[in-house]
Amino acid sequence: MARRKIIGVMGGAEATPEVEALAEELGRRIAEAGFTLLTGGRPAGVMEAASRGAKQAQGLVVGILPGPDPDEASKFVDIAIATNLQDARNLANVLSCDVVVACPGGAGTLTEVGMALKNRKPLVLLRFDPGPVKNSAIREGIAVCVKTPAEAMAAVQDFLAKEKK
Amino acid sequence: MARRKIIGVMGGAEATPEVEALAEELGRRIAEAGFTLLTGGRPAGVMEAASRGAKQAQGLVVGILPGPDPDEASKFVDIAIATNLQDARNLANVLSCDVVVACPGGAGTLTEVGMALKNRKPLVLLRFDPGPVKNSAIREGIAVCVKTPAEAMAAVQDFLAKEKK
Amino acid sequence: MARRKIIGVMGGAEATPEVEALAEELGRRIAEAGFTLLTGGRPAGVMEAASRGAKQAQGLVVGILPGPDPDEASKFVDIAIATNLQDARNLANVLSCDVVVACPGGAGTLTEVGMALKNRKPLVLLRFDPGPVKNSAIREGIAVCVKTPAEAMAAVQDFLAKEKK
Amino acid sequence: MARRKIIGVMGGAEATPEVEALAEELGRRIAEAGFTLLTGGRPAGVMEAASRGAKQAQGLVVGILPGPDPDEASKFVDIAIATNLQDARNLANVLSCDVVVACPGGAGTLTEVGMALKNRKPLVLLRFDPGPVKNSAIREGIAVCVKTPAEAMAAVQDFLAKEKK
Repeated sequence: MARRKIIGVMGGAEATPEVEALAEELGRRIAEAGFTLLTGGRPAGVMEAASRGAKQAQGLVVGILPGPDPDEASKFVDIAIATNLQDARNLANVLSCDVVVACPGGAGTLTEVGMALKNRKPLVLLRFDPGPVKNSAIREGIAVCVKTPAEAMAAVQDFLAKEKK
Repeated sequence: MARRKIIGVMGGAEATPEVEALAEELGRRIAEAGFTLLTGGRPAGVMEAASRGAKQAQGLVVGILPGPDPDEASKFVDIAIATNLQDARNLANVLSCDVVVACPGGAGTLTEVGMALKNRKPLVLLRFDPGPVKNSAIREGIAVCVKTPAEAMAAVQDFLAKEKK
Repeated sequence: MARRKIIGVMGGAEATPEVEALAEELGRRIAEAGFTLLTGGRPAGVMEAASRGAKQAQGLVVGILPGPDPDEASKFVDIAIATNLQDARNLANVLSCDVVVACPGGAGTLTEVGMALKNRKPLVLLRFDPGPVKNSAIREGIAVCVKTPAEAMAAVQDFLAKEKK
Repeated sequence: MARRKIIGVMGGAEATPEVEALAEELGRRIAEAGFTLLTGGRPAGVMEAASRGAKQAQGLVVGILPGPDPDEASKFVDIAIATNLQDARNLANVLSCDVVVACPGGAGTLTEVGMALKNRKPLVLLRFDPGPVKNSAIREGIAVCVKTPAEAMAAVQDFLAKEKK
């Protein structure tokens, strides 16, 4: 089986420097742990920062773009998937990951969190709050809330360890 | 211009009797006001209840289905759109509406609310809380929180009146 | 069961006057027979002509648009479904129909014919040739080739009669 | 710019041994030339054969799946993109490629060829005939017909050389 483990990082296309630093560290840790990073692929915000982080550790970066042109991807993306499905590509973003990490973001991130929860994909909420819908997923053990990239990586590893059993 | 005004009702496929009564009243009021109702089309929960309500008032009901088969629609749906796009059909649900009303629901509803906010579609939150992401939309006047179907209809009419100007 | 029978008319966004006349007659016949017409919804070519024809006979017209804005629909469309899925909306165009009629067109029409054949949707090829892939579908009785709108309607009625058995 | 050149191989999920040999050789040549291979990802027909060929030459293989589960990919796929968009994922298959090669196939392949032509993606028709729609694309130089994997690779290199100018 050749399939690589993919960890998704979702979050705002507009991000504060603090959130970008968070996403960059997370991307670097994902690559250091040997995982492939997946983002929404655009050269902006959390997507760009996480991808830059992963390339610092020579990781492989997949970007699933909303538009039709692979050349619109961040320069830190190795494999650009162009969909022209706009926000509907968020479904592919989430389903392609072994674990999804949601960083601070807005309505787009909310959509991705909703799709992760709907499809029961392991979900790490890193300082992102989608409201009360998260509660039952947390109780069932398919979502966790964390505060730092280090805690996010520990949660990712936990989810993958559970999956193996 | 033949195009009919479409009001969308989103909400859980699993719903309590109280929420179903809410959705049924909302659907009926939408039809009584002369609008076309749009739902996710399945014979379940808020979708079915709102559609049933609209048919009580001889309304026209459009259902956009996740699966490939129009015959999977609720029996209260007049126009069944079959997509086989699964959760990605939520984007079409939202974009096709002049105003979206979100009733209580789970992760699917969260996705639809995220897509409405992302695409700046007028949004009425009827006892559904998508967390802090809603706050900026409320400040900008593209989302409102209400408690009853009557308040939801008033909010719908307000949005449509503003649009005309 | 409220669900209305939907007949889809696919074909080029750029069309000769002869092809537009063909599509207009077909749209009118579909409405006269009591069916709902479905097209790709844009104000162009076969889509516009078929919709205009259906409105001449007071038919109901559904248009599934590639873009995000229902107001981009042809003025002859009653129910505008906005998807923002671009060419991927062709899947919904085809699946939502009880029978698909393909008029002369280009690559977009080829895509819709491919999706109809893939999903074994009854298909009438009205002067449109998708190459050798059609042959097995014709042998199996799920596709037919015709030359005129009258023949197309006869084929539509045949497919619907077979379905009932 | 990290982005890798991606060559797509489309074709039937059901394929004769002769067609599978064709696809396997093509996949191997794509990897030997240093390109990333993209297919529809399933463990069947042309998709599986091309992926197997690429892995014989230590290539990187991306598979864009119709379903929701990355584990449904062929064992020769490195990067599995799960979409749950069914046939609508064909749009992403085509748009993500720098050049698309269509091998013998059925209705699904016809859909992908239609989407490539519609989006003016460089297209190599390797013993697959989509009917008369291809003719204008051939005249404009965005599609070519070839008979062997070696000719297909020459056409791919030609398209990429033209793009650079």
